[in-house]
Amino acid sequence: MVLKPASGSGQVQSRIESAVATVTLDHPGRMNAITVDMWGELAEIFARLSSDPDLRCVVVRGAGGHFAAGADIREFPRVRADRDRVMAYHRQIIAPALQAIGDCVPPVIAAIEGVCVGGGLEIASRCDLRLAARGARFGAPINRLGFPMAPDEMRGLLELAGRATTLEILLEGRVFEADEALAKGLLTRVVANEALESELTATVARLCAGAPRAARLNKWTARRLMGNPMPLSDTEWQACFAYADGPDHPQGIQAFLKGTDPVFTGE
Amino acid sequence: MVLKPASGSGQVQSRIESAVATVTLDHPGRMNAITVDMWGELAEIFARLSSDPDLRCVVVRGAGGHFAAGADIREFPRVRADRDRVMAYHRQIIAPALQAIGDCVPPVIAAIEGVCVGGGLEIASRCDLRLAARGARFGAPINRLGFPMAPDEMRGLLELAGRATTLEILLEGRVFEADEALAKGLLTRVVANEALESELTATVARLCAGAPRAARLNKWTARRLMGNPMPLSDTEWQACFAYADGPDHPQGIQAFLKGTDPVFTGE
Amino acid sequence: MVLKPASGSGQVQSRIESAVATVTLDHPGRMNAITVDMWGELAEIFARLSSDPDLRCVVVRGAGGHFAAGADIREFPRVRADRDRVMAYHRQIIAPALQAIGDCVPPVIAAIEGVCVGGGLEIASRCDLRLAARGARFGAPINRLGFPMAPDEMRGLLELAGRATTLEILLEGRVFEADEALAKGLLTRVVANEALESELTATVARLCAGAPRAARLNKWTARRLMGNPMPLSDTEWQACFAYADGPDHPQGIQAFLKGTDPVFTGE
Repeated sequence: MVLKPASGSGQVQSRIESAVATVTLDHPGRMNAITVDMWGELAEIFARLSSDPDLRCVVVRGAGGHFAAGADIREFPRVRADRDRVMAYHRQIIAPALQAIGDCVPPVIAAIEGVCVGGGLEIASRCDLRLAARGARFGAPINRLGFPMAPDEMRGLLELAGRATTLEILLEGRVFEADEALAKGLLTRVVANEALESELTATVARLCAGAPRAARLNKWTARRLMGNPMPLSDTEWQACFAYADGPDHPQGIQAFLKGTDPVFTGE
Repeated sequence: MVLKPASGSGQVQSRIESAVATVTLDHPGRMNAITVDMWGELAEIFARLSSDPDLRCVVVRGAGGHFAAGADIREFPRVRADRDRVMAYHRQIIAPALQAIGDCVPPVIAAIEGVCVGGGLEIASRCDLRLAARGARFGAPINRLGFPMAPDEMRGLLELAGRATTLEILLEGRVFEADEALAKGLLTRVVANEALESELTATVARLCAGAPRAARLNKWTARRLMGNPMPLSDTEWQACFAYADGPDHPQGIQAFLKGTDPVFTGE
Repeated sequence: MVLKPASGSGQVQSRIESAVATVTLDHPGRMNAITVDMWGELAEIFARLSSDPDLRCVVVRGAGGHFAAGADIREFPRVRADRDRVMAYHRQIIAPALQAIGDCVPPVIAAIEGVCVGGGLEIASRCDLRLAARGARFGAPINRLGFPMAPDEMRGLLELAGRATTLEILLEGRVFEADEALAKGLLTRVVANEALESELTATVARLCAGAPRAARLNKWTARRLMGNPMPLSDTEWQACFAYADGPDHPQGIQAFLKGTDPVFTGE
């Protein structure tokens, strides 16, 4: 199932197979540079995937050997011609797409090869897991383009890697290798280029072997605790433990005590 | 001095020697799986140790070559039979034990070998230092048990290792080695299996060579600054510098200026 | 241009060349131990550099092969004789100097060789980038001096490296090598001793190749997002995107689209 093949040269494809969605950035010959239309498609696709109760996880990747080279700079003279348009571009085009990825209810895995810079790195930073091929390259060399990273874009990097690494990336504008990105906390793990597919398959299988409701609740809890210092409300506490009334918890415990593999059927 | 050898097959032992307390999780043949009784003993023991003004540090470890395999799942059908009991189990049994460890006034060192998963990892994450044998194994594969990590348990992992690592652990449910745990920020250091005892002895000696009141104040200050964005009150400022009226500060400075080793006698 | 060669044996030197300021801690024969006068000079110099609109970056380093051995302990019997003076020393002498470094508007790079402990490490933790020679040594062994780290000093370490690493440093009081400091997140990168100068030159060049206003805005945004959970105000949003009216943004985009190197002339 291919959804909304956008007009124009770049598009975001999305298909769902066995409860796993794959979202593919595809802008041929441009290292998947992300156009205004593609940012909009990302926001739309992730909003739809997020509300699909059967989905076990989402994979984000790029076509043609690259993740994404960032926002499409060829559009800049038109879409960023003055302060109002610059602000609209960042706040009304990019920010909602990144927010939709970060807010996605099922787990999101970025599978990264080739170039992953600028907006590409911003997308990856909003995913839950980041698998990278050793040959992938990372950075945000926008200081050479004359502009800083917008607040809603920097937020994801700060949450993932902290202030020192975020500023290092932005102040120096270096493009660096996957092993360095891993050491900086930007990645979950790095594998040989030829092992990216098998590692992705294994990671998806690990996610799908777990209870689906537990995965969604773990994401909710982490976001809640990191984003809000207030104690949980009674309603939030009830939501945290509502799983006890569902099928996953007794299934998992029974399987463990019997020494068998649990089968979680979703909801 | 062995305190409160609990009835039943699992127990938490505690002894104090030369101002160093050792707390041992001991559940033979069960990789120290932590029963409801043991969680209660942990809360009680740490509350008592925390109020001992002479204690220089606390070591937490497991008997029989393992740290802890997590909560004792054999109790689950009884103690987690419905939503109310699940919530009580996490909020009234586990959370107070973890809080007591995190709130312990003297420094706490986890000495980790063998299995350190689930509740074992939650305990380790609340300690100040985490020394691990290279053969130790880490994780929280509770997604296979059908339930998410409760908020008060996740809090310690988030504070130690951040959202990305916490979610990686929970979403994938992998069990991984000590070197990977170190790279993820979950450990202070890793040594060869046969060097864990000597490293623990050396670490305890380093803690005991420092001024005891300074150690306790450093813990207080770190917790205060991380947990509360408000400026310190006058009372808090006075508490921060009250050490200047005690014996440790002039002793330390005089020893340094004379080129001798300081001797801190406690309070 | 050498500014304010202080009286006494220790001083902080500052010179500006090609829009790059170099601030040098210089206390011969004392591994640049920082006197009360030197802390005052640091606060003054950084306040002045921070308000220089033409500056592209600031380098902080030490003379004679060391960064800094920390506060000058020989002054302690005089300046830290009782609680009031201890509090004044930390809150009115050290805290303003560290704050001035952390608040510096242009990017700040620490170039670290030799000893970087105590107050030296506190200074380094407030810089944006930390380059270290492999032979550099790090720590804060003040537990042997009988006192804890003051809150305003610990804040920088907590923000940079988190609670676990900060407490490890303070509770154990170990002095450790650059590679370990890198793994703990205390450094941007480590190079061979003989490569520190060339790495510093290259890093300064990378910073100076970027748009100056973008660098300053990136620093502002990171600080704003980390320090304050409130949404940005309209005024703050306008400030974030004011660069769109300046020369850097069109210059950078035009250069990119033409395939040439951008030339940013400052403001």
